[in-house]
Amino acid sequence: MSERTGNQPDLSRLLNPSAIAIVGASTNPKSISGQPLAHMLACGFEGKLYPVNPKREEVQGVKAYADVLSLPGPCDAAVIAVGREHVPDVLEQCGKAGIPYAVILTAGFSETHTESGAEMQHRLNAAIAKSGVRVVGPNCVGVMNVIKRAYMAFGGALSDKTLRPGPLAIVSQSGGFGQSMMTFANAHGVGSNYVVSCGNEADLSFFDFAHDFLERDEVKMIATYMEATTEGMQLRELGRHALEVGKPILMLKVGNSGAGRRAANSHTGKLTADYTLFRTTFREGGFIEVSDLDEMADVARLVMGGKYPKGRNLGILTGSGGWGVIMADHSEKNGLNLPSTSSEHQAKLHALNSTFSSVANPIDMMANYNDQYKAIECVMDDPAFDMFLVRSAAGPDVGIWADRFIETAAKTDKPMIINWSSIPTRDVDVREKLERAGYLCANYAGRAARAAAIFADFAIKQDRFRKGELQLSRPIERQSLDIKTGSGACSEQVSKAYVGRYGIPVTSEAMLSLQAVLTLDKSPVPFPVAVKLASPDIPHKTEADAVRLNINSIADLKRAAREVYDGGRRYAPAARIDGISIQEMAGGMEVIIGAVNDSQFGPYVMVGLGGVLTEVLGDVAHRFAPVGPETAREMLNELRGRDILKGVRGAPPADIDALVDVIVRVSWLINDHANVISEIDINPLFVRPAGKGVVAADALIVPVNKTGPVESSGSEP
Amino acid sequence: MSERTGNQPDLSRLLNPSAIAIVGASTNPKSISGQPLAHMLACGFEGKLYPVNPKREEVQGVKAYADVLSLPGPCDAAVIAVGREHVPDVLEQCGKAGIPYAVILTAGFSETHTESGAEMQHRLNAAIAKSGVRVVGPNCVGVMNVIKRAYMAFGGALSDKTLRPGPLAIVSQSGGFGQSMMTFANAHGVGSNYVVSCGNEADLSFFDFAHDFLERDEVKMIATYMEATTEGMQLRELGRHALEVGKPILMLKVGNSGAGRRAANSHTGKLTADYTLFRTTFREGGFIEVSDLDEMADVARLVMGGKYPKGRNLGILTGSGGWGVIMADHSEKNGLNLPSTSSEHQAKLHALNSTFSSVANPIDMMANYNDQYKAIECVMDDPAFDMFLVRSAAGPDVGIWADRFIETAAKTDKPMIINWSSIPTRDVDVREKLERAGYLCANYAGRAARAAAIFADFAIKQDRFRKGELQLSRPIERQSLDIKTGSGACSEQVSKAYVGRYGIPVTSEAMLSLQAVLTLDKSPVPFPVAVKLASPDIPHKTEADAVRLNINSIADLKRAAREVYDGGRRYAPAARIDGISIQEMAGGMEVIIGAVNDSQFGPYVMVGLGGVLTEVLGDVAHRFAPVGPETAREMLNELRGRDILKGVRGAPPADIDALVDVIVRVSWLINDHANVISEIDINPLFVRPAGKGVVAADALIVPVNKTGPVESSGSEP
Repeated sequence: MSERTGNQPDLSRLLNPSAIAIVGASTNPKSISGQPLAHMLACGFEGKLYPVNPKREEVQGVKAYADVLSLPGPCDAAVIAVGREHVPDVLEQCGKAGIPYAVILTAGFSETHTESGAEMQHRLNAAIAKSGVRVVGPNCVGVMNVIKRAYMAFGGALSDKTLRPGPLAIVSQSGGFGQSMMTFANAHGVGSNYVVSCGNEADLSFFDFAHDFLERDEVKMIATYMEATTEGMQLRELGRHALEVGKPILMLKVGNSGAGRRAANSHTGKLTADYTLFRTTFREGGFIEVSDLDEMADVARLVMGGKYPKGRNLGILTGSGGWGVIMADHSEKNGLNLPSTSSEHQAKLHALNSTFSSVANPIDMMANYNDQYKAIECVMDDPAFDMFLVRSAAGPDVGIWADRFIETAAKTDKPMIINWSSIPTRDVDVREKLERAGYLCANYAGRAARAAAIFADFAIKQDRFRKGELQLSRPIERQSLDIKTGSGACSEQVSKAYVGRYGIPVTSEAMLSLQAVLTLDKSPVPFPVAVKLASPDIPHKTEADAVRLNINSIADLKRAAREVYDGGRRYAPAARIDGISIQEMAGGMEVIIGAVNDSQFGPYVMVGLGGVLTEVLGDVAHRFAPVGPETAREMLNELRGRDILKGVRGAPPADIDALVDVIVRVSWLINDHANVISEIDINPLFVRPAGKGVVAADALIVPVNKTGPVESSGSEP
Repeated sequence: MSERTGNQPDLSRLLNPSAIAIVGASTNPKSISGQPLAHMLACGFEGKLYPVNPKREEVQGVKAYADVLSLPGPCDAAVIAVGREHVPDVLEQCGKAGIPYAVILTAGFSETHTESGAEMQHRLNAAIAKSGVRVVGPNCVGVMNVIKRAYMAFGGALSDKTLRPGPLAIVSQSGGFGQSMMTFANAHGVGSNYVVSCGNEADLSFFDFAHDFLERDEVKMIATYMEATTEGMQLRELGRHALEVGKPILMLKVGNSGAGRRAANSHTGKLTADYTLFRTTFREGGFIEVSDLDEMADVARLVMGGKYPKGRNLGILTGSGGWGVIMADHSEKNGLNLPSTSSEHQAKLHALNSTFSSVANPIDMMANYNDQYKAIECVMDDPAFDMFLVRSAAGPDVGIWADRFIETAAKTDKPMIINWSSIPTRDVDVREKLERAGYLCANYAGRAARAAAIFADFAIKQDRFRKGELQLSRPIERQSLDIKTGSGACSEQVSKAYVGRYGIPVTSEAMLSLQAVLTLDKSPVPFPVAVKLASPDIPHKTEADAVRLNINSIADLKRAAREVYDGGRRYAPAARIDGISIQEMAGGMEVIIGAVNDSQFGPYVMVGLGGVLTEVLGDVAHRFAPVGPETAREMLNELRGRDILKGVRGAPPADIDALVDVIVRVSWLINDHANVISEIDINPLFVRPAGKGVVAADALIVPVNKTGPVESSGSEP
């Protein structure tokens, strides 16, 4: 697997080839093996084209060669479209001929889930290693450079001669879908410079291309269709790279539903990891997650516009009251804020035209064009707003409206999104003029609002990254812990001790033998207490009937000690017993904090508000570790049950600051010891009223399941 | 307010006028008062046009008249576009001239929220009453009959000469939005016969038009934009009418978010009721709720196709694996089922082409057209599927694909929705051919899936209505209850007695004076018991510290009685005391069942699973009363926390049948006594494990706040 720092391949000759061989080039321009040559001839690729076909003198009017060793000059890339059994030999010949890249269109390899396919994939892999040729595919629709019309690819979309190059680069795990992305982006005025279909990724991967594109000046954003990857850490690294260069990756991640996941598995043979971790990755890095082609094209348009909002405060300007209402509904549904126009600017609007029917927000600026562009100019510097949604005028004079709008909107750095009034097949020239000037024209209020919202999310994240606000500072030095791997979960006492070492308050406790408890005069911990059996072999004590709560007298304490001992013995007769733990009974709001070191994505922390919210509704927030207090707060705000923390049914507000601090500390604990800790579970953490802190009443640390010495050291983020 | 059974106005002459007067007709064809005449002349209205303008001999080339009394012949409708101060006089003249209808475009009435506007509205209302003329508006963009090009209206959309009439009728509370609906539906191949903008509804209302359209043969569905109505019962009645005639009402209800609601209020001056009751209304009746114009046009297209699915089982057919995955994701997200192709039909598909890469669902039928239409034909009678989503072929041969598709799909009654591969401005002729043949061509997977899902919901509801499955049978005869109105809430004892009369189990109870309790030898109710103070003046006992639970001994019982008595006395020293209630301590899962008689929408019943789910997440399901067991079950399934009922954390499954029965009975209780009961609250209802029933531990009935005799009789549904 490639790492960005290190052996990132140089893809220049593949992406900008001057000479291309097409091995297996067919005389039938509609066949898969005939299309690359046909499309490049039709669209005017200006480099050299070498059809390779031993049976023909020429193919589609171009001189043909018997094999790649017979080519008359140097060649940058070979498109391979021969029967699968011939692919390994052709690849080895390419190596001998000094052709550095091959794009293998042929299918019938590992993706078939058959024995013969696996065997062919094995032979291909060997040929790749032996030849030294860097390979795209197999089972892909190819690689396109739209600037030079270098179409080492097939597909209906390539016959469109109106395709414009542009700032987008597309990397797709589905060839057909990748071309649809290009086509629809193009229809929205967003051209693509490169389109790559990764196929089986026998050699060059999705990540190789994505990292390469991020570094190219002519690429301003990437769009990807992804069904699956097991390379979670690489995906996170890609997200960081995108933030660093300030170029968003528009991510269409599919295969997330049950049926979609099955379909993706049958399509690419890859079973996707839990979607939660993908979403967490997209939120962390320079991704903008989109759910469909329309959203993708809309957001691409906004990126191309080059103006980024500073926040989520949206102003709505409309000449139709009805459209104002529906835009407001959709904006709020998508999480945008609709503050009121500032009083200063309300007064200015009234001064402009006293009959404006609303100057708050939405601003109903009536149907007169002159009034409209003056109203826009009037409010665009109102600090209440970070961006605007503007309903375009309808009817025959929309061209005049557009000219005035362009003139006016050019005077602000705040993005303006047009809710476009004409149907898609009408006033196309006017819409295209607006698009060329950098504006998204979205027909539907829902689409406009959705695009504005997800674009604002990205802009805010990018801004925080630029300002260094995502830099973390440690709440505590790295603690060295003596964690034994390969021998099961740590006991509650050990787990609490480790958690305590990271500055997380835990309940006070005394550990005694059963005999010692039975001879006590008074409790070693003030009443009320909890009594638990301590055994390294019984991590889930409730199941074993080895817990008694709310003990208030010495007699009850002794009875409880006997009961939990007997309970544990019944549950696991051979269990080792450390003793009887007598613990402070804590109270407060029950919260669950967990952390997991995922084998694909790395360590992450999660929080849920306990009870039915966590167990029935799965109301849990996730972030990769470590996190800072701001992110921990964001996690709490993301929970559907978040209002509980404010206090309900007469309860006082919870100590959110202390809770945030625990999330941060747990995230550093798993980060610092990711090599040896597989899982941390604090359940329950009792959160007391504001100012009164928190206390962990139980904790469980599960080391990784490796035996032998493992160095306990996490990475510094 | 009009009732459908009764004085529904006959709108024939308004909707199909042969002669139209335009009062205030301007020589400027772009002005509001010039547009109606200009548009009708341009589009070829064949009836008589009478411009009324005392200053002109002719207007826009048509002979003008000084006033409506001077018209040379009978006139069906007058368009009024004069200054607001002249409107009442013109209306009275219309009355004298025998013109039965007027469409008042003029604004400046109640919608302005000004004193002068209110005064003008008052004068207008008087003129309406005096003249006997039936009025549309004021403050509307008018009434359009697209069949006859009778455009008693203004707006940019009317200049489009390609507008086709069609099965849609549009009634809108926003004139601008109503025309957008027409324009976008038309662009999707769905023509409109009538478009009405209701304006201020000074006389003819939204409901008058909607009921009228439902009865017209040339109307197959209605589309509406609604910001607000206080006529909840009329809206429900409209929904029932739609089900009876089998014509859906596509409902775009806006003003639901905070900002949207404020904007709607500023736009129409109407504050919307709680959106929950609107949604409940839409679910109950023949509505299809849509959230935007795209959804509206897509569903209209499906209605026009005339094929209705029998259920939610969707088959996906695709030639691109990637598109199959994204269609599957979006379908599942929208609540559709994706069952596997039956094994019999899988075998048939394999026989057809052994290289099909998936025959389950999605069915990946490869890129070859011949294979595609054969695959469609092969699976379309598979009983596993109620409907299909089919990805169209891309590229230059899409026309051939379309012809074969039309030929094939004609052979089934199951709806087929096309996920259309060409961008909106390309292959328009092919798309239009498919649309004319009755198919929706949706570019985006999300749109296709969403339209399929909401259309299926309607089809299932309509089917159930037709089969009489929505008919209800009483679980119990109407009980006569002696409910006193105007004197506050019923006591717990009385409330429980009434609830009990409707067959709902309540906890057993003994009521004694404090003195009597203090002399008891044994509890009149077996331990454990709850002890509560009974006072008609203390409905919320917990607040008053007047409840003790889990009492297990006679000593504790006496102490508890004293405590709750003292608690109540402290809380409300003047409270009347009925005594001390000693109640069976019930246990089980806590559920809240409520019922409210809403002044706008009528009586409804609701259920929530208690605790944080109800109080923090607002996880509550609503239905209008009465309901049958199926609907009650649907309510439970709608709850986000529904899985609790199945048993979590080792708890056994709850007695859902008994819970369903209580929902049904409460719904009949509020229905039977809607005149006198304002609210019912059963909280908690304890639901025991399956087979063990339920018991109401507390109940509260609040009579309506009217004094004097009120007849206690609900309507029979």
